[in-house]
Amino acid sequence: MPQKHFRLLKTSNGARVGELNTPHGTVPTPVFMPVGSQATVKTLTPDEIRDAGFNMVLANTYHLYLRPGIDVVEEMGRLHRFMAWNGALLTDSGGYQVFSLAPLCKITDDGVTFRSHIDGSEHFLTPELAIQYQESLGADVIMVLDECIAYGDNEEKVRKAMDRTHRWAERCLKARKRKDQALYAIVQGGMFPELRRRSAEYLTALDFPGYAIGGLSVGEPKETTFAMVEETSALLPAEKPRYLMGVGSPEDIVEGVARGIDIFDSALPTRVARNGALFTDKGRVNIRKATYRSMDAPLDPACDCYTCRTFSAAYLSHLFRSDELLGLRLATVHNLRFIANLMGKIRDSILDGTFSAFRKDFLSTYKTTDEKTRVEQKGKWLKGREKEA
Amino acid sequence: MPQKHFRLLKTSNGARVGELNTPHGTVPTPVFMPVGSQATVKTLTPDEIRDAGFNMVLANTYHLYLRPGIDVVEEMGRLHRFMAWNGALLTDSGGYQVFSLAPLCKITDDGVTFRSHIDGSEHFLTPELAIQYQESLGADVIMVLDECIAYGDNEEKVRKAMDRTHRWAERCLKARKRKDQALYAIVQGGMFPELRRRSAEYLTALDFPGYAIGGLSVGEPKETTFAMVEETSALLPAEKPRYLMGVGSPEDIVEGVARGIDIFDSALPTRVARNGALFTDKGRVNIRKATYRSMDAPLDPACDCYTCRTFSAAYLSHLFRSDELLGLRLATVHNLRFIANLMGKIRDSILDGTFSAFRKDFLSTYKTTDEKTRVEQKGKWLKGREKEA
Repeated sequence: MPQKHFRLLKTSNGARVGELNTPHGTVPTPVFMPVGSQATVKTLTPDEIRDAGFNMVLANTYHLYLRPGIDVVEEMGRLHRFMAWNGALLTDSGGYQVFSLAPLCKITDDGVTFRSHIDGSEHFLTPELAIQYQESLGADVIMVLDECIAYGDNEEKVRKAMDRTHRWAERCLKARKRKDQALYAIVQGGMFPELRRRSAEYLTALDFPGYAIGGLSVGEPKETTFAMVEETSALLPAEKPRYLMGVGSPEDIVEGVARGIDIFDSALPTRVARNGALFTDKGRVNIRKATYRSMDAPLDPACDCYTCRTFSAAYLSHLFRSDELLGLRLATVHNLRFIANLMGKIRDSILDGTFSAFRKDFLSTYKTTDEKTRVEQKGKWLKGREKEA
Repeated sequence: MPQKHFRLLKTSNGARVGELNTPHGTVPTPVFMPVGSQATVKTLTPDEIRDAGFNMVLANTYHLYLRPGIDVVEEMGRLHRFMAWNGALLTDSGGYQVFSLAPLCKITDDGVTFRSHIDGSEHFLTPELAIQYQESLGADVIMVLDECIAYGDNEEKVRKAMDRTHRWAERCLKARKRKDQALYAIVQGGMFPELRRRSAEYLTALDFPGYAIGGLSVGEPKETTFAMVEETSALLPAEKPRYLMGVGSPEDIVEGVARGIDIFDSALPTRVARNGALFTDKGRVNIRKATYRSMDAPLDPACDCYTCRTFSAAYLSHLFRSDELLGLRLATVHNLRFIANLMGKIRDSILDGTFSAFRKDFLSTYKTTDEKTRVEQKGKWLKGREKEA
């Protein structure tokens, strides 16, 4: 890469402002990436993603390998051209999906054999193949193949998976052919601080251009999540970007930033939008509630998204009650715009040294789902999901 | 109305070019109205409808009465404002939906008692209420309440329904309070030419600002449809617009125009789009076919729609194969743009006197579904549909 992949511009009480330099533009951090697993951020066009305020999107190697096939995307001029997205792209290696989504999966040091969740066909993935596929897709940032454990696995099991993840990370490094993509390593170690420490140290020594924290937000209590983030983040090199995988509720983004995280992704904002849960400064509201049926004002009068600028809450409520697809779009646009605005406020407050106040203020106003309900919902979702991960 | 509602500008071999003058703009005819039964053209924003080339849309009184309720739409500033559509609007009275969609319906001279297809609740609709509701919704063109018969009903039954439709048309005229809406009558008479003639003559004498042909495209063979259209159209006053209800496949539009029709509506272009059937000059193609899986070109390279300008057929194919909602949007945009372009070519060819050649050329290239399959599909759809009519 001609330019340094990451520049740290300012640190304030542990929170960081920086920028990612990619072949498809500079991305200010902290950044949230909307999830487009299947080469589409559900319901939206590339123009709408841009208009909502995003210039980096995540896609998924597992999904694209199964459908339409890596070869098809490559023939179509690689992923950016295929999905008509000229901003930055990150692909996950598919590790998480293989371990959590595929109905059967058998792992050896060599790689992982799994069945497609779509048609049950058998496939084999190795660190080398994960790199090869991601080089064919051509995203700006690519990820190592890691072994993901389940929440509740014992220390012995987690340690073995972590050790294998480390060996695989080295193989991924060696397998690389393209020099224009930034390959990130993934720190594992489950909920064991000592393992997290070892993982961070091991991978840091390999000098990757970026580091992700994996294996979190998999059903554990929030305090555990952030204890692990804090533990890990502190051990990562300051001059490299830190990516907290699969985390992206508004409150978790704020808490992640406070612990030095630069990059987030999550399907949550778009998924809950399609369920009619819309972000406001006071927390999520359910558009199906009776109160919105005849509300002759935007859902959030202060919001500058297309939905709030154009339609009343009553119309949005009508679309959801009538199962109209436009409702899913308008809700998605709103939630993503909310996140984009949040990222802007976070960056501004770090730059002018007021992030601590912003964080306190935001978290005191933003009502979160109570922890018991959240863990229940997450568990249900982890079990029930098919297509999104 | 300060201005004449319809101006006939040119007639060529029976085909007509004109314009509708409405409080929300002038609409060149022949015109096709995308169907937005529930105050939304499925999957699209108002901007996208406009960009696809439309300035008149249809909504449905039956659907809006049930959900969100006429009172809600009125409180929200009436239908244009509710759905953020500043172009022309036509509302159907809901007669067709009451008779074809509601699970139970009992008719007397007074009106019709029906059950909601959503929750089974009982409702009563009269010609006076149909007008009152449509005045509350505030569309530019509104329709009388008519009694709709089923395909295959005997002459006696069809005649009685027709006579009642005539009495109801007179009651609708009397019930009107607003002067800024154009109220159209609906010619009935089933598949009986003599009844069609009587209906056209009866209603013409009442001097409505526009005339619709109802009760067609309900399962009958195409030749019957167009025999009835020809029969009826010839008896309608030249200086009034003629609206063929529920007809809107590309080939039927061309055939309708040839018989003097000015206005069309149909959910077909948008419905088949969501099934992956896309219009091309050669006929409908199915985007799920293997041939599109790796086609590195727009579905129709000659098409100027957003979809064809932005994405390959391979991407569209991927979206459909992966059940991605963006696919439904992109296909809808394409099919509507195809229809808008068709209407433009029709108008141009009438204006320069070449419509007959255009018609011949179009129909010789555009491969239609064979008649047997079409009638079967239509029958299946008429039985199976729930929300769209």
